Amino acid sequence: MFETAELGRSIPKKEFEAEVQDLRTQLLSIQQDLRKCDFPVIIVMAGVDGAGKGSTVNALNEWMDSRWIDNNAYVRHSDEESERPPYWRYWRDLPPKGKIGIFLSSWYSSPLLDNVYGKINRAEFDERLDRIKAFEKTLADDGALILKFWMHLGKEDQKKRLKKLEKNELQSWRVKESDWNHWRMYDDFTDSAERLIMRTSKGHAPWSIVEGMDTRYASVTVAKQVRDAILRHMDVRKTQKETLEQLKKKQAAEKKPAAKKVDKDAAVKPLPYPTVLSSLDMSKTVEKDAYKSELKTLQGRLNMLSRKASDKGISTVLVFEGSDAAGKGGNIRRITGALDARIYKVLPFAAPNDEERAHHYLWRFWRHMSRAGRMTIFDRSWYGRVLVERCEGFAREEEWRRAYGEIVDFEDQIVDHGTVLLKFWIHITPDEQLERFKAREVTPWKQWKLTDEDWRNREKWSDYEEAVNDLVEKTSTSNAPWLLVEGNDKKFARIKVLRAVCKALEERLKQK
Amino acid sequence: MFETAELGRSIPKKEFEAEVQDLRTQLLSIQQDLRKCDFPVIIVMAGVDGAGKGSTVNALNEWMDSRWIDNNAYVRHSDEESERPPYWRYWRDLPPKGKIGIFLSSWYSSPLLDNVYGKINRAEFDERLDRIKAFEKTLADDGALILKFWMHLGKEDQKKRLKKLEKNELQSWRVKESDWNHWRMYDDFTDSAERLIMRTSKGHAPWSIVEGMDTRYASVTVAKQVRDAILRHMDVRKTQKETLEQLKKKQAAEKKPAAKKVDKDAAVKPLPYPTVLSSLDMSKTVEKDAYKSELKTLQGRLNMLSRKASDKGISTVLVFEGSDAAGKGGNIRRITGALDARIYKVLPFAAPNDEERAHHYLWRFWRHMSRAGRMTIFDRSWYGRVLVERCEGFAREEEWRRAYGEIVDFEDQIVDHGTVLLKFWIHITPDEQLERFKAREVTPWKQWKLTDEDWRNREKWSDYEEAVNDLVEKTSTSNAPWLLVEGNDKKFARIKVLRAVCKALEERLKQK
Repeated sequence: MFETAELGRSIPKKEFEAEVQDLRTQLLSIQQDLRKCDFPVIIVMAGVDGAGKGSTVNALNEWMDSRWIDNNAYVRHSDEESERPPYWRYWRDLPPKGKIGIFLSSWYSSPLLDNVYGKINRAEFDERLDRIKAFEKTLADDGALILKFWMHLGKEDQKKRLKKLEKNELQSWRVKESDWNHWRMYDDFTDSAERLIMRTSKGHAPWSIVEGMDTRYASVTVAKQVRDAILRHMDVRKTQKETLEQLKKKQAAEKKPAAKKVDKDAAVKPLPYPTVLSSLDMSKTVEKDAYKSELKTLQGRLNMLSRKASDKGISTVLVFEGSDAAGKGGNIRRITGALDARIYKVLPFAAPNDEERAHHYLWRFWRHMSRAGRMTIFDRSWYGRVLVERCEGFAREEEWRRAYGEIVDFEDQIVDHGTVLLKFWIHITPDEQLERFKAREVTPWKQWKLTDEDWRNREKWSDYEEAVNDLVEKTSTSNAPWLLVEGNDKKFARIKVLRAVCKALEERLKQK
Repeated sequence: MFETAELGRSIPKKEFEAEVQDLRTQLLSIQQDLRKCDFPVIIVMAGVDGAGKGSTVNALNEWMDSRWIDNNAYVRHSDEESERPPYWRYWRDLPPKGKIGIFLSSWYSSPLLDNVYGKINRAEFDERLDRIKAFEKTLADDGALILKFWMHLGKEDQKKRLKKLEKNELQSWRVKESDWNHWRMYDDFTDSAERLIMRTSKGHAPWSIVEGMDTRYASVTVAKQVRDAILRHMDVRKTQKETLEQLKKKQAAEKKPAAKKVDKDAAVKPLPYPTVLSSLDMSKTVEKDAYKSELKTLQGRLNMLSRKASDKGISTVLVFEGSDAAGKGGNIRRITGALDARIYKVLPFAAPNDEERAHHYLWRFWRHMSRAGRMTIFDRSWYGRVLVERCEGFAREEEWRRAYGEIVDFEDQIVDHGTVLLKFWIHITPDEQLERFKAREVTPWKQWKLTDEDWRNREKWSDYEEAVNDLVEKTSTSNAPWLLVEGNDKKFARIKVLRAVCKALEERLKQK
């Protein structure tokens, strides 16, 4: 695989200087255009020690406007990082739309080293590479341009390079004892690297192997590829955008105009086939006295369990979704009422802010992953993508369709990290909702909860029901199952939810 | 001081339940109104161990909508926290406008403990309290409502409470060995607490002492005070807003309409008195060959120094300000060109995004404080408050006037933490600016840099000059002096800046 990168290519100094002059002008001008584009550029630099990763990154930074490039390099995990799923630190450093992010010692670093050092076998290595593939696909699907450069040196060349660096006073710091160790393991590295490149080189995130013997050649080669790839991607995105706009216009022309006025008495049209929701027994209730005593017992249990989990550094993530007025808030309050205020956070999600909009839709949820031992309660969540964004047309069909897979992968990472993850769909019937809406209309301090939007959502009841059915089908995994909660009787729902949280914590505590 | 909090006040259960019903309704409705207000609510809970801080916070959370309350509690510093100035962790947790943030074991915790344990003497204790005062004043001036509750128990009552908690299976975890230690030091705690409360109780951030023997009484008392304070603050802010709007209208009526068309040939009017800028010798230059060789030497030196600093965990913050086209970017590139891309970040600042706008103007800069050993380069900075926001009227006079003090305090914290802080004002003459603007107009890849706004800023040259003069006068401290850079000759400026950075790093490295 690396033969073509051992040809001894180089650029003479004079030629280099002339070429760089043009390159800089082009790169700077591209950066300016990029700022107006709706995609980020992600550049991964990896490869053999001493093959000029650092000097190439420095060249890119020198040639471009450093205000629109971010450099990210990773060493050991900080404690804040190791208390979250491993990809948290990459997510939080992802560049927003219009910017370039360069990643050194990136997500490829630890799988490669672990494999070379024999800490993980081939199957585990492949699994780690699969996670990378999913990560990059998620970003690329959202429009990100991903470029990956593997800087290569032949075995003898690497030896020469390391010796040369050691002699140079200004460069000797670059050579560490581990570099020589790695050199001795050169063949193992090459084997693992080959597998890594083969398995993770995709059309949307290709690897490019760059000969690293001549730093001038390496820098110019990488810079030119970056330049060309950005220009190409701008074209592609532009065409996509135009096509989408035409499609939108066409759809808009075909669509009947929506009724201006909200019809509060309109009957909800049921779906003509059964769904996971229609199969729920919505008549379930619990008696007031039984409720009171069980609530108290469960809250006491939850209090004990949550403290034990916190002491052991076990995090919990609870997701609450449900129709409007289903009682998410009331359920959440019964949980937080049992908890020490120091260990939980309730995070309500509505429309994203502009910084969040400049990132992948999952970014804002990654951002809020809590540290070890905390309970994070999401009042609405990443499922917005396949619920409101789907039903209201904020996300295109291909976007919400691929979101299921992205979400499953995201949740896998949470669970793999040892976090307890529970997802609740609180369900009520259309009639019950109507009653609650009407009650809200007359209760002064609840009026704010009811908007015209709620009435309009109600008109789309069957769309939402279909969306919920799909969501359960596609994202209820053994790792992170959905719990459907019959919510017509608030007391019944609260007990069911509390029981589930206690049970999950108990099981998790047994494991540790 | 605490006598009035040892009166044995309590609320019977029946009365409590009736009262809570109303309180909840009121609090929930207030929270809804608060969401539309332009200020955050900051609640500090402190006091004697066992006096019901936790149970009061839990009550507040239970009674209000947990989506608009955030609870923050602090234990040991995480490594990410200890690599930044101590207040970083509080800044990053501050609630945005419209939300309530509750702080347990807050900024008061470590000064108090350190004083009681004799780690700091009275003078140092006072100094730490002064920092707190400055912090709270900064937030209050920006509109924040700050409420601080000291939960109190008499010495014998505390003993009883701790014993009672120990007996209760569900509560015994609350009592730690350190609580009994603290009880033995009760009188020392009371002494320090008195001083703390006396010195930090201000009109804009008052302490309220609450008797903690009866948890029902304590919760209701705190909740009522929170309710009343928010309502009062809403009124105050509303009146302020109305007054400001009237003032604005009046000013707008008096103001002459601005010239619609940009006059590119208008001469810049000089100020009739000398300023720090007019006293600069703008004819300074450096020869091309001397520049080339010195640039190389300085960049080599900087590279060595920056690596040493990084190894020792010394952070550097560089601030670049200057007129449009003064060459900030070129100066920054000469610095970053000498650095390993892994250790620096360039942060350009323009208008804040909406999440940033919902916080104090310093919040977004606190947010970007880097970890230990990194160099952070601010391309424009917090000085925007006293430059563009002052000159364009985005900040009111009282706002930018008090910003000087806020900024000095902010920078003190950076320097106290051991960070190297340098501030550069790159200056050019109006004639030089005109030439550069005209050159930009004809250079294709520089055109984006030049906007009508730049021409308009130019018309306000003397306003900016006055602002710079004030800024140097008020924020050039021995801790964090301004370096004024004669920028008409770009080469001269770059050498001067590089020299200053090297010198500062050298001096800092000698200390450690």
